[in-house]
Amino acid sequence: METPAADRMRLTRASAPLTREVQVRDEYGATRSIMIPAERPLTIFVDKRELVTLMTLGAAPELLTLGYLRNQRLVESADDIDSISVDWDVEAAAVKTRRGIEHFEAKTARRIVTTGCGQGTVFGNLMDEAGTWTLPAATDASARMSQTALYGLLDAVRRQESTYKSAGSVHGCALFRQQEMLTFVEDVGRHNAIDTIAGWMWLHGVGGGDKAFYTTGRLTSEMVMKSAQMGVPIIVSRSGVTQMGYELAQRLGLALFGRATNRHFICYCGFERFDAEPEPPRPSA
Amino acid sequence: METPAADRMRLTRASAPLTREVQVRDEYGATRSIMIPAERPLTIFVDKRELVTLMTLGAAPELLTLGYLRNQRLVESADDIDSISVDWDVEAAAVKTRRGIEHFEAKTARRIVTTGCGQGTVFGNLMDEAGTWTLPAATDASARMSQTALYGLLDAVRRQESTYKSAGSVHGCALFRQQEMLTFVEDVGRHNAIDTIAGWMWLHGVGGGDKAFYTTGRLTSEMVMKSAQMGVPIIVSRSGVTQMGYELAQRLGLALFGRATNRHFICYCGFERFDAEPEPPRPSA
Repeated sequence: METPAADRMRLTRASAPLTREVQVRDEYGATRSIMIPAERPLTIFVDKRELVTLMTLGAAPELLTLGYLRNQRLVESADDIDSISVDWDVEAAAVKTRRGIEHFEAKTARRIVTTGCGQGTVFGNLMDEAGTWTLPAATDASARMSQTALYGLLDAVRRQESTYKSAGSVHGCALFRQQEMLTFVEDVGRHNAIDTIAGWMWLHGVGGGDKAFYTTGRLTSEMVMKSAQMGVPIIVSRSGVTQMGYELAQRLGLALFGRATNRHFICYCGFERFDAEPEPPRPSA
Repeated sequence: METPAADRMRLTRASAPLTREVQVRDEYGATRSIMIPAERPLTIFVDKRELVTLMTLGAAPELLTLGYLRNQRLVESADDIDSISVDWDVEAAAVKTRRGIEHFEAKTARRIVTTGCGQGTVFGNLMDEAGTWTLPAATDASARMSQTALYGLLDAVRRQESTYKSAGSVHGCALFRQQEMLTFVEDVGRHNAIDTIAGWMWLHGVGGGDKAFYTTGRLTSEMVMKSAQMGVPIIVSRSGVTQMGYELAQRLGLALFGRATNRHFICYCGFERFDAEPEPPRPSA
Protein backbone atom coordinates (compact mmCIF):
# COMPACT_ATOMS: atom_id res chain seq x y z
CA MET A 1 0.00 0.00 0.00
CA GLU A 2 1.21 3.48 -0.82
CA THR A 3 2.09 5.95 1.89
CA PRO A 4 -0.65 8.59 2.06
CA ALA A 5 0.31 12.03 0.80
CA ALA A 6 -0.32 13.33 4.33
CA ASP A 7 3.16 12.13 5.28
CA ARG A 8 4.87 14.25 2.66
CA MET A 9 2.67 17.30 2.09
CA ARG A 10 3.20 20.33 4.32
CA LEU A 11 -0.04 22.01 5.38
CA THR A 12 -0.68 24.93 7.68
CA ARG A 13 -3.57 24.70 10.11
CA ALA A 14 -4.98 28.17 9.74
CA SER A 15 -7.98 28.86 11.89
CA ALA A 16 -10.49 31.67 12.10
CA PRO A 17 -13.77 32.17 13.95
CA LEU A 18 -16.62 30.26 12.28
CA THR A 19 -19.43 32.39 13.69
CA ARG A 20 -20.09 35.97 14.63
CA GLU A 21 -22.64 37.35 17.07
CA VAL A 22 -24.98 40.06 15.78
CA GLN A 23 -27.82 42.08 17.25
CA VAL A 24 -31.11 41.62 15.40
CA ARG A 25 -34.77 42.52 15.86
CA ASP A 26 -37.63 40.09 15.60
CA GLU A 27 -41.35 40.31 14.86
CA TYR A 28 -42.07 41.18 18.49
CA GLY A 29 -39.88 44.27 18.24
CA ALA A 30 -37.37 42.65 20.57
CA THR A 31 -33.64 43.08 20.11
CA ARG A 32 -31.76 39.85 20.51
CA SER A 33 -28.41 38.34 19.86
CA ILE A 34 -27.89 35.56 17.35
CA MET A 35 -24.94 33.83 15.72
CA ILE A 36 -24.36 33.99 11.99
CA PRO A 37 -21.80 31.95 10.04
CA ALA A 38 -18.56 33.50 8.84
CA GLU A 39 -18.00 33.97 5.12
CA ARG A 40 -14.58 35.05 3.93
CA PRO A 41 -12.68 35.14 0.67
CA LEU A 42 -9.79 32.74 0.12
CA THR A 43 -7.69 33.42 -2.95
CA ILE A 44 -5.79 30.39 -4.16
CA PHE A 45 -2.37 30.96 -5.72
CA VAL A 46 -0.67 28.03 -7.42
CA ASP A 47 3.08 28.51 -7.75
CA LYS A 48 2.46 32.23 -7.30
CA ARG A 49 -0.18 32.43 -10.05
CA GLU A 50 -3.66 33.53 -8.96
CA LEU A 51 -6.19 30.80 -9.68
CA VAL A 52 -9.51 31.66 -8.07
CA THR A 53 -11.15 33.28 -5.05
CA LEU A 54 -13.51 31.04 -3.08
CA MET A 55 -15.94 32.36 -0.49
CA THR A 56 -15.72 30.03 2.46
CA LEU A 57 -16.69 29.53 6.08
CA GLY A 58 -13.00 28.92 6.76
CA ALA A 59 -13.20 25.69 8.75
CA ALA A 60 -10.58 23.75 6.80
CA PRO A 61 -9.03 26.01 4.16
CA GLU A 62 -6.05 23.75 3.38
CA LEU A 63 -8.26 20.73 2.67
CA LEU A 64 -10.64 22.92 0.69
CA THR A 65 -7.76 24.13 -1.46
CA LEU A 66 -6.49 20.58 -1.97
CA GLY A 67 -9.93 19.24 -2.84
CA TYR A 68 -10.61 22.14 -5.17
CA LEU A 69 -7.41 21.42 -7.12
CA ARG A 70 -8.38 17.77 -7.26
CA ASN A 71 -11.99 18.21 -8.28
CA GLN A 72 -11.08 20.75 -10.93
CA ARG A 73 -8.55 18.18 -12.21
CA LEU A 74 -5.77 20.75 -12.06
CA VAL A 75 -3.47 18.35 -10.22
CA GLU A 76 -3.15 14.66 -11.08
CA SER A 77 -1.90 13.33 -7.77
CA ALA A 78 -1.72 14.59 -4.21
CA ASP A 79 2.00 13.87 -4.41
CA ASP A 80 2.39 16.67 -6.95
CA ILE A 81 1.74 19.13 -4.13
CA ASP A 82 4.59 20.11 -1.89
CA SER A 83 2.77 22.47 0.45
CA ILE A 84 -0.38 24.52 1.05
CA SER A 85 0.01 27.58 3.28
CA VAL A 86 -3.08 29.51 4.30
CA ASP A 87 -2.74 32.96 5.86
CA TRP A 88 -6.04 34.54 6.88
CA ASP A 89 -4.36 37.93 7.34
CA VAL A 90 -4.02 38.14 3.58
CA GLU A 91 -6.96 35.78 2.86
CA ALA A 92 -4.77 33.61 0.65
CA ALA A 93 -3.79 29.98 0.14
CA ALA A 94 -0.35 29.57 -1.40
CA VAL A 95 0.06 26.22 -3.14
CA LYS A 96 3.53 25.03 -4.04
CA THR A 97 3.71 22.14 -6.50
CA ARG A 98 6.68 19.86 -6.93
CA ARG A 99 6.82 20.07 -10.72
CA GLY A 100 4.45 22.86 -11.73
CA ILE A 101 1.10 22.34 -13.49
CA GLU A 102 1.21 21.52 -17.18
CA HIS A 103 -1.03 23.52 -19.48
CA PHE A 104 -2.21 25.69 -16.57
CA GLU A 105 -3.70 28.36 -18.82
CA ALA A 106 -5.53 25.91 -21.02
CA LYS A 107 -6.93 23.99 -18.06
CA THR A 108 -8.37 27.12 -16.47
CA ALA A 109 -9.67 28.81 -19.61
CA ARG A 110 -13.19 27.42 -19.86
CA ARG A 111 -15.93 28.42 -17.48
CA ILE A 112 -19.08 26.58 -16.62
CA VAL A 113 -21.27 28.17 -14.00
CA THR A 114 -23.39 25.49 -12.47
CA THR A 115 -26.30 25.15 -10.16
CA GLY A 116 -24.23 24.42 -7.12
CA CYS A 117 -24.23 26.50 -4.03
CA GLY A 118 -20.80 27.84 -3.61
CA GLN A 119 -18.26 26.71 -5.97
CA GLY A 120 -20.06 26.91 -9.19
CA THR A 121 -17.18 26.91 -11.59
CA VAL A 122 -15.91 23.82 -13.27
CA PHE A 123 -12.79 24.32 -15.24
CA GLY A 124 -11.85 22.40 -18.29
CA ASN A 125 -13.65 19.53 -19.78
CA LEU A 126 -14.91 17.85 -16.68
CA MET A 127 -18.29 17.14 -18.24
CA ASP A 128 -16.59 15.32 -21.10
CA GLU A 129 -14.62 13.14 -18.72
CA ALA A 130 -17.66 11.95 -16.80
CA GLY A 131 -18.04 8.90 -18.99
CA THR A 132 -14.59 7.61 -18.09
CA TRP A 133 -15.17 7.31 -14.34
CA THR A 134 -15.93 3.84 -13.06
CA LEU A 135 -17.77 2.92 -9.91
CA PRO A 136 -17.79 -0.46 -8.17
CA ALA A 137 -20.43 -2.93 -9.34
CA ALA A 138 -23.80 -2.86 -7.61
CA THR A 139 -23.24 -6.52 -6.69
CA ASP A 140 -20.31 -5.48 -4.48
CA ALA A 141 -21.72 -5.52 -0.94
CA SER A 142 -19.60 -2.57 0.20
CA ALA A 143 -20.99 -0.42 -2.62
CA ARG A 144 -24.62 -1.00 -1.57
CA MET A 145 -26.71 0.51 1.20
CA SER A 146 -29.39 -1.19 3.28
CA GLN A 147 -32.38 0.68 4.66
CA THR A 148 -31.03 0.04 8.18
CA ALA A 149 -27.62 1.49 7.32
CA LEU A 150 -29.32 4.49 5.72
CA TYR A 151 -31.26 5.16 8.93
CA GLY A 152 -28.02 4.80 10.90
CA LEU A 153 -26.35 7.32 8.62
CA LEU A 154 -29.20 9.79 9.09
CA ASP A 155 -29.04 9.32 12.87
CA ALA A 156 -25.33 10.10 12.85
CA VAL A 157 -25.99 13.29 10.89
CA ARG A 158 -28.72 14.30 13.33
CA ARG A 159 -26.43 13.84 16.35
CA GLN A 160 -23.49 15.74 14.82
CA GLU A 161 -22.67 19.05 16.50
CA SER A 162 -22.47 21.75 13.87
CA THR A 163 -22.21 25.39 12.93
CA TYR A 164 -25.59 24.86 11.29
CA LYS A 165 -27.17 24.14 14.66
CA SER A 166 -25.69 27.28 16.20
CA ALA A 167 -25.79 29.72 13.30
CA GLY A 168 -27.72 28.20 10.36
CA SER A 169 -27.04 29.17 6.76
CA VAL A 170 -24.31 26.66 6.03
CA HIS A 171 -24.30 23.39 4.14
CA GLY A 172 -23.01 20.21 5.69
CA CYS A 173 -21.39 17.27 3.94
CA ALA A 174 -20.13 14.01 5.38
CA LEU A 175 -18.35 10.90 4.20
CA PHE A 176 -19.68 7.56 5.42
CA ARG A 177 -18.70 3.90 5.31
CA GLN A 178 -22.19 2.45 5.70
CA GLN A 179 -23.51 4.15 8.89
CA GLU A 180 -20.04 5.12 10.16
CA MET A 181 -19.27 8.82 9.73
CA LEU A 182 -15.63 9.26 8.73
CA THR A 183 -15.50 13.02 8.35
CA PHE A 184 -17.93 15.92 8.47
CA VAL A 185 -17.44 19.36 6.94
CA GLU A 186 -19.51 22.51 6.77
CA ASP A 187 -19.16 25.50 4.52
CA VAL A 188 -21.23 28.38 3.24
CA GLY A 189 -21.35 26.62 -0.12
CA ARG A 190 -22.01 22.92 -0.37
CA HIS A 191 -19.42 22.54 -3.12
CA ASN A 192 -16.77 23.83 -0.81
CA ALA A 193 -17.91 21.24 1.71
CA ILE A 194 -17.67 18.35 -0.72
CA ASP A 195 -14.36 19.62 -2.09
CA THR A 196 -12.98 19.75 1.44
CA ILE A 197 -13.94 16.11 1.89
CA ALA A 198 -12.27 15.30 -1.42
CA GLY A 199 -9.14 16.99 -0.08
CA TRP A 200 -9.33 14.89 3.09
CA MET A 201 -9.73 11.68 1.08
CA TRP A 202 -6.84 12.54 -1.19
CA LEU A 203 -4.55 13.55 1.63
CA HIS A 204 -5.16 10.34 3.54
CA GLY A 205 -5.34 8.03 0.53
CA VAL A 206 -8.95 7.06 1.24
CA GLY A 207 -10.80 5.43 -1.66
CA GLY A 208 -14.43 6.10 -2.51
CA GLY A 209 -15.78 2.74 -3.67
CA ASP A 210 -17.15 1.59 -0.31
CA LYS A 211 -18.29 5.06 0.80
CA ALA A 212 -21.39 7.23 0.67
CA PHE A 213 -21.70 10.99 0.69
CA TYR A 214 -24.24 12.83 2.76
CA THR A 215 -25.07 16.40 1.79
CA THR A 216 -27.65 18.88 3.01
CA GLY A 217 -27.65 20.38 -0.49
CA ARG A 218 -29.51 19.40 -3.60
CA LEU A 219 -28.45 16.58 -5.87
CA THR A 220 -27.45 18.60 -8.91
CA SER A 221 -25.33 17.52 -11.85
CA GLU A 222 -22.22 18.94 -10.25
CA MET A 223 -22.69 17.10 -6.96
CA VAL A 224 -23.21 13.84 -8.85
CA MET A 225 -20.14 14.47 -10.98
CA LYS A 226 -17.95 15.22 -8.01
CA SER A 227 -19.12 12.09 -6.25
CA ALA A 228 -18.51 9.95 -9.32
CA GLN A 229 -15.12 11.53 -9.82
CA MET A 230 -14.15 10.48 -6.30
CA GLY A 231 -15.50 6.99 -6.94
CA VAL A 232 -18.30 7.29 -4.36
CA PRO A 233 -21.33 5.36 -5.68
CA ILE A 234 -24.00 6.51 -3.21
CA ILE A 235 -25.24 10.01 -2.30
CA VAL A 236 -27.77 10.84 0.38
CA SER A 237 -29.31 14.31 0.60
CA ARG A 238 -31.72 16.13 2.85
CA SER A 239 -32.87 17.97 -0.29
CA GLY A 240 -34.15 16.94 -3.67
CA VAL A 241 -32.75 16.30 -7.12
CA THR A 242 -32.57 18.18 -10.40
CA GLN A 243 -33.04 16.64 -13.80
CA MET A 244 -29.37 16.70 -14.78
CA GLY A 245 -28.32 15.30 -11.42
CA TYR A 246 -30.84 12.50 -11.90
CA GLU A 247 -29.90 11.72 -15.48
CA LEU A 248 -26.18 11.82 -14.80
CA ALA A 249 -26.55 9.52 -11.79
CA GLN A 250 -28.55 7.06 -13.88
CA ARG A 251 -25.93 7.11 -16.60
CA LEU A 252 -23.01 6.70 -14.21
CA GLY A 253 -24.76 4.14 -12.01
CA LEU A 254 -24.96 6.06 -8.72
CA ALA A 255 -27.67 5.54 -6.15
CA LEU A 256 -29.37 8.79 -5.14
CA PHE A 257 -31.39 9.16 -1.95
CA GLY A 258 -33.13 12.47 -1.37
CA ARG A 259 -35.57 14.12 1.06
CA ALA A 260 -33.77 11.96 3.59
CA THR A 261 -34.45 12.77 7.23
CA ASN A 262 -35.38 10.59 10.18
CA ARG A 263 -37.07 7.55 8.66
CA HIS A 264 -38.18 9.18 5.44
CA PHE A 265 -36.42 9.19 2.08
CA ILE A 266 -36.89 8.82 -1.63
CA CYS A 267 -34.61 6.62 -3.70
CA TYR A 268 -34.46 8.40 -7.05
CA CYS A 269 -32.27 5.93 -8.90
CA GLY A 270 -29.71 3.21 -8.39
CA PHE A 271 -32.33 0.89 -6.87
CA GLU A 272 -29.95 -1.98 -7.59
CA ARG A 273 -27.58 -0.66 -4.91
CA PHE A 274 -30.34 -0.51 -2.30
CA ASP A 275 -31.43 -3.27 0.05
CA ALA A 276 -34.94 -2.16 0.95
CA GLU A 277 -36.39 -3.18 4.28
CA PRO A 278 -39.71 -1.43 3.88
CA GLU A 279 -41.41 0.33 6.76
CA PRO A 280 -44.81 -1.10 7.71
CA PRO A 281 -47.54 0.44 5.55
CA ARG A 282 -48.88 3.81 6.66
CA PRO A 283 -51.78 3.37 9.16
CA SER A 284 -54.14 5.13 6.75
CA ALA A 285 -53.11 2.93 3.80
CA MET B 1 -38.91 59.38 -19.70
CA GLU B 2 -36.80 57.13 -21.89
CA THR B 3 -38.38 54.44 -23.99
CA PRO B 4 -37.70 51.07 -22.39
CA ALA B 5 -35.22 48.85 -24.20
CA ALA B 6 -38.02 46.34 -24.67
CA ASP B 7 -39.22 48.36 -27.64
CA ARG B 8 -35.92 48.01 -29.46
CA MET B 9 -34.37 44.74 -28.36
CA ARG B 10 -35.26 41.57 -30.22
CA LEU B 11 -35.75 38.56 -27.99
CA THR B 12 -36.79 35.02 -28.76
CA ARG B 13 -39.26 33.33 -26.44
CA ALA B 14 -37.66 29.94 -26.21
CA SER B 15 -39.52 27.49 -24.03
CA ALA B 16 -38.78 24.07 -22.67
CA PRO B 17 -40.44 21.79 -20.11
CA LEU B 18 -39.73 22.93 -16.55
CA THR B 19 -40.34 19.59 -14.90
CA ARG B 20 -39.91 15.93 -15.64
CA GLU B 21 -41.75 12.96 -14.18
CA VAL B 22 -39.64 10.19 -12.69
CA GLN B 23 -40.35 6.89 -10.95
CA VAL B 24 -38.93 6.68 -7.44
CA ARG B 25 -39.17 4.38 -4.41
CA ASP B 26 -39.96 5.50 -0.92
CA GLU B 27 -39.33 4.18 2.58
CA TYR B 28 -42.41 1.94 2.34
CA GLY B 29 -40.94 0.19 -0.67
CA ALA B 30 -43.61 1.74 -2.87
CA THR B 31 -42.87 2.90 -6.40
CA ARG B 32 -44.37 6.27 -7.14
CA SER B 33 -44.20 9.04 -9.63
CA ILE B 34 -42.89 12.49 -8.75
CA MET B 35 -41.92 15.61 -10.64
CA ILE B 36 -38.36 16.95 -10.58
CA PRO B 37 -37.23 20.31 -11.93
CA ALA B 38 -35.40 20.57 -15.23
CA GLU B 39 -31.75 21.62 -15.26
CA ARG B 40 -30.10 22.34 -18.57
CA PRO B 41 -26.98 24.07 -19.80
CA LEU B 42 -27.25 27.40 -21.58
CA THR B 43 -24.06 28.61 -23.21
CA ILE B 44 -23.99 32.35 -23.77
CA PHE B 45 -22.22 33.65 -26.85
CA VAL B 46 -21.65 37.39 -27.15
CA ASP B 47 -21.00 38.48 -30.72
CA LYS B 48 -20.06 34.87 -31.45
CA ARG B 49 -17.55 34.64 -28.61
CA GLU B 50 -18.29 32.02 -25.95
CA LEU B 51 -18.74 33.68 -22.56
CA VAL B 52 -20.05 31.16 -20.05
CA THR B 53 -22.31 28.15 -19.59
CA LEU B 54 -25.06 28.55 -17.02
CA MET B 55 -27.07 25.64 -15.66
CA THR B 56 -30.68 26.75 -15.61
CA LEU B 57 -34.25 25.61 -15.16
CA GLY B 58 -34.95 27.30 -18.47
CA ALA B 59 -38.03 29.35 -17.59
CA ALA B 60 -36.82 32.66 -19.04
CA PRO B 61 -33.48 32.15 -20.74
CA GLU B 62 -33.47 35.48 -22.62
CA LEU B 63 -34.03 37.51 -19.46
CA LEU B 64 -31.48 35.39 -17.63
CA THR B 65 -28.91 36.14 -20.33
CA LEU B 66 -29.72 39.85 -20.24
CA GLY B 67 -29.55 40.03 -16.46
CA TYR B 68 -26.33 38.04 -16.38
CA LEU B 69 -24.67 40.49 -18.78
CA ARG B 70 -25.94 43.36 -16.65
CA ASN B 71 -24.97 41.97 -13.26
CA GLN B 72 -21.53 41.01 -14.48
CA ARG B 73 -21.19 44.59 -15.76
CA LEU B 74 -20.29 43.35 -19.21
CA VAL B 75 -22.79 45.67 -20.86
CA GLU B 76 -23.36 49.27 -19.79
CA SER B 77 -26.88 49.78 -21.09
CA ALA B 78 -29.70 47.56 -22.28
CA ASP B 79 -29.64 49.63 -25.45
CA ASP B 80 -26.23 48.21 -26.29
CA ILE B 81 -27.95 44.91 -27.00
CA ASP B 82 -29.54 44.37 -30.36
CA SER B 83 -30.90 40.86 -29.85
CA ILE B 84 -30.81 37.70 -27.75
CA SER B 85 -31.71 34.46 -29.49
CA VAL B 86 -32.06 31.30 -27.46
CA ASP B 87 -32.20 27.94 -29.18
CA TRP B 88 -32.69 24.98 -26.84
CA ASP B 89 -31.79 22.53 -29.61
CA VAL B 90 -28.21 23.72 -29.33
CA GLU B 91 -28.53 24.93 -25.70
CA ALA B 92 -27.21 28.34 -26.62
CA ALA B 93 -28.06 32.02 -26.22
CA ALA B 94 -26.63 34.17 -29.02
CA VAL B 95 -26.27 37.81 -27.99
CA LYS B 96 -25.75 40.42 -30.67
CA THR B 97 -24.54 43.80 -29.42
CA ARG B 98 -24.86 47.05 -31.33
CA ARG B 99 -21.29 48.19 -30.88
CA GLY B 100 -19.38 45.23 -29.43
CA ILE B 101 -18.09 45.01 -25.86
CA GLU B 102 -14.97 47.00 -25.04
CA HIS B 103 -12.19 45.20 -23.21
CA PHE B 104 -14.11 41.92 -23.35
CA GLU B 105 -11.09 39.81 -22.47
CA ALA B 106 -10.04 42.01 -19.56
CA LYS B 107 -13.56 42.13 -18.15
CA THR B 108 -13.90 38.36 -18.12
CA ALA B 109 -10.41 37.48 -16.94
CA ARG B 110 -10.84 37.46 -13.16
CA ARG B 111 -12.76 34.77 -11.37
CA ILE B 112 -14.39 34.89 -8.00
CA VAL B 113 -16.32 31.82 -6.97
CA THR B 114 -18.83 32.83 -4.38
CA THR B 115 -21.22 31.24 -2.01
CA GLY B 116 -24.22 31.65 -4.22
CA CYS B 117 -26.27 28.84 -5.51
CA GLY B 118 -25.99 28.83 -9.21
CA GLN B 119 -24.12 31.60 -10.72
CA GLY B 120 -21.13 31.75 -8.52
CA THR B 121 -18.81 33.64 -10.78
CA VAL B 122 -18.36 37.35 -10.61
CA PHE B 123 -16.24 38.76 -13.34
CA GLY B 124 -14.08 41.78 -13.04
CA ASN B 125 -13.83 44.10 -10.15
CA LEU B 126 -17.40 44.03 -8.98
CA MET B 127 -16.37 43.93 -5.34
CA ASP B 128 -14.34 47.09 -5.80
CA GLU B 129 -17.27 48.89 -7.34
CA ALA B 130 -19.62 48.15 -4.47
CA GLY B 131 -18.77 51.37 -2.70
CA THR B 132 -19.93 53.48 -5.62
CA TRP B 133 -23.55 52.27 -5.64
CA THR B 134 -26.07 54.52 -4.02
CA LEU B 135 -29.42 53.59 -2.56
CA PRO B 136 -32.30 55.92 -1.72
CA ALA B 137 -32.24 57.47 1.74
CA ALA B 138 -33.94 55.58 4.55
CA THR B 139 -36.15 58.65 5.09
CA ASP B 140 -37.69 58.10 1.64
CA ALA B 141 -41.05 56.43 2.36
CA SER B 142 -40.91 54.28 -0.79
CA ALA B 143 -37.54 52.85 0.28
CA ARG B 144 -38.88 51.66 3.65
CA MET B 145 -40.96 48.64 4.62
CA SER B 146 -43.60 48.40 7.30
CA GLN B 147 -44.30 45.22 9.20
CA THR B 148 -47.76 45.09 7.57
CA ALA B 149 -46.29 45.40 4.07
CA LEU B 150 -43.74 42.71 4.92
CA TYR B 151 -46.56 40.35 5.94
CA GLY B 152 -48.38 41.20 2.72
CA LEU B 153 -45.26 40.39 0.73
CA LEU B 154 -44.90 37.02 2.47
CA ASP B 155 -48.56 36.25 1.84
CA ALA B 156 -48.11 36.95 -1.87
CA VAL B 157 -45.14 34.60 -1.98
CA ARG B 158 -47.13 31.88 -0.22
CA ARG B 159 -50.00 32.15 -2.69
CA GLN B 160 -47.77 32.10 -5.78
CA GLU B 161 -48.05 28.98 -7.94
CA SER B 162 -44.61 27.58 -8.56
CA THR B 163 -42.37 24.85 -9.85
CA TYR B 164 -41.17 24.58 -6.26
CA LYS B 165 -44.63 23.49 -5.15
CA SER B 166 -44.83 20.84 -7.84
CA ALA B 167 -41.23 19.65 -8.03
CA GLY B 168 -39.14 21.22 -5.25
CA SER B 169 -35.42 21.83 -5.56
CA VAL B 170 -35.58 25.29 -7.14
CA HIS B 171 -35.04 28.74 -5.74
CA GLY B 172 -37.62 31.47 -6.14
CA CYS B 173 -37.03 35.19 -6.36
CA ALA B 174 -39.54 38.00 -6.70
CA LEU B 175 -39.55 41.75 -7.12
CA PHE B 176 -41.97 43.73 -4.98
CA ARG B 177 -43.19 47.30 -4.66
CA GLN B 178 -44.21 47.13 -1.02
CA GLN B 179 -46.59 44.12 -0.91
CA GLU B 180 -47.29 44.14 -4.65
CA MET B 181 -45.48 41.37 -6.53
CA LEU B 182 -44.25 42.67 -9.88
CA THR B 183 -42.48 39.61 -11.18
CA PHE B 184 -41.60 36.13 -9.92
CA VAL B 185 -38.88 33.85 -11.23
CA GLU B 186 -37.62 30.42 -10.32
CA ASP B 187 -34.40 28.71 -11.25
CA VAL B 188 -32.23 25.86 -10.08
CA GLY B 189 -29.78 28.47 -8.80
CA ARG B 190 -30.93 31.52 -6.90
CA HIS B 191 -28.42 33.73 -8.70
CA ASN B 192 -29.99 32.81 -11.99
CA ALA B 193 -33.34 33.79 -10.52
CA ILE B 194 -32.17 37.21 -9.37
CA ASP B 195 -30.30 37.79 -12.62
CA THR B 196 -33.45 37.02 -14.55
CA ILE B 197 -35.28 39.66 -12.53
CA ALA B 198 -32.43 42.08 -13.23
CA GLY B 199 -32.93 41.34 -16.92
CA TRP B 200 -36.66 42.03 -16.61
CA MET B 201 -36.02 45.34 -14.83
CA TRP B 202 -33.46 46.43 -17.38
CA LEU B 203 -35.61 45.46 -20.34
CA HIS B 204 -38.60 47.37 -19.04
CA GLY B 205 -36.68 50.31 -17.58
CA VAL B 206 -37.87 49.57 -14.04
CA GLY B 207 -35.85 51.26 -11.28
CA GLY B 208 -34.97 49.61 -8.00
CA GLY B 209 -35.20 52.42 -5.44
CA ASP B 210 -38.78 51.77 -4.36
CA LYS B 211 -38.57 47.98 -4.63
CA ALA B 212 -37.75 44.98 -2.46
CA PHE B 213 -36.37 41.60 -3.44
CA TYR B 214 -37.70 38.37 -2.04
CA THR B 215 -35.52 35.29 -2.30
CA THR B 216 -35.81 31.77 -0.95
CA GLY B 217 -32.00 31.64 -0.83
CA ARG B 218 -29.56 32.85 1.76
CA LEU B 219 -28.46 36.45 2.11
CA THR B 220 -24.86 36.07 1.04
CA SER B 221 -22.46 38.79 -0.06
CA GLU B 222 -23.26 38.20 -3.67
CA MET B 223 -27.01 38.52 -3.20
CA VAL B 224 -26.52 41.77 -1.33
CA MET B 225 -24.19 43.08 -4.00
CA LYS B 226 -26.57 42.25 -6.79
CA SER B 227 -29.42 43.93 -4.99
CA ALA B 228 -27.35 47.05 -4.30
CA GLN B 229 -26.15 47.10 -7.87
CA MET B 230 -29.77 47.20 -9.04
CA GLY B 231 -30.56 49.92 -6.54
CA VAL B 232 -32.94 47.77 -4.48
CA PRO B 233 -32.55 48.73 -0.80
CA ILE B 234 -34.53 45.91 0.87
CA ILE B 235 -34.10 42.12 0.69
CA VAL B 236 -36.38 39.57 2.29
CA SER B 237 -35.35 35.93 2.53
CA ARG B 238 -36.85 32.69 3.77
CA SER B 239 -33.31 31.72 4.78
CA GLY B 240 -30.59 33.28 6.90
CA VAL B 241 -27.58 35.49 6.39
CA THR B 242 -23.83 35.02 6.18
CA GLN B 243 -21.26 37.31 7.72
CA MET B 244 -20.21 38.95 4.47
CA GLY B 245 -23.78 39.44 3.39
CA TYR B 246 -24.49 41.08 6.72
CA GLU B 247 -21.43 43.31 6.73
CA LEU B 248 -21.87 44.38 3.14
CA ALA B 249 -25.54 45.24 3.71
CA GLN B 250 -24.61 47.32 6.75
CA ARG B 251 -21.96 49.16 4.79
CA LEU B 252 -24.22 49.79 1.79
CA GLY B 253 -27.28 50.64 3.87
CA LEU B 254 -29.61 47.81 2.85
CA ALA B 255 -32.29 46.37 5.10
CA LEU B 256 -32.10 42.59 5.42
CA PHE B 257 -34.99 40.46 6.62
CA GLY B 258 -34.34 36.75 7.04
CA ARG B 259 -36.08 33.59 8.31
CA ALA B 260 -39.16 35.29 6.94
CA THR B 261 -42.26 33.13 6.68
CA ASN B 262 -45.86 33.67 7.74
CA ARG B 263 -45.65 36.20 10.59
CA HIS B 264 -42.09 35.44 11.64
CA PHE B 265 -38.91 37.21 10.58
CA ILE B 266 -35.63 38.59 11.78
CA CYS B 267 -34.44 42.05 10.74
CA TYR B 268 -30.66 41.67 10.60
CA CYS B 269 -29.79 45.24 9.73
CA GLY B 270 -31.16 48.40 8.15
CA PHE B 271 -33.55 48.90 11.09
CA GLU B 272 -33.87 52.52 9.95
CA ARG B 273 -35.77 51.37 6.86
CA PHE B 274 -38.22 49.34 8.91
CA ASP B 275 -41.48 50.53 10.44
CA ALA B 276 -42.03 47.98 13.14
CA GLU B 277 -45.56 47.19 14.27
CA PRO B 278 -44.65 44.58 16.84
CA GLU B 279 -46.73 41.46 17.34
CA PRO B 280 -48.28 41.13 20.80
CA PRO B 281 -45.80 39.54 23.19
CA ARG B 282 -45.62 35.73 23.12
CA PRO B 283 -48.19 34.21 25.49
CA SER B 284 -45.36 32.65 27.49
CA ALA B 285 -43.47 35.96 27.81
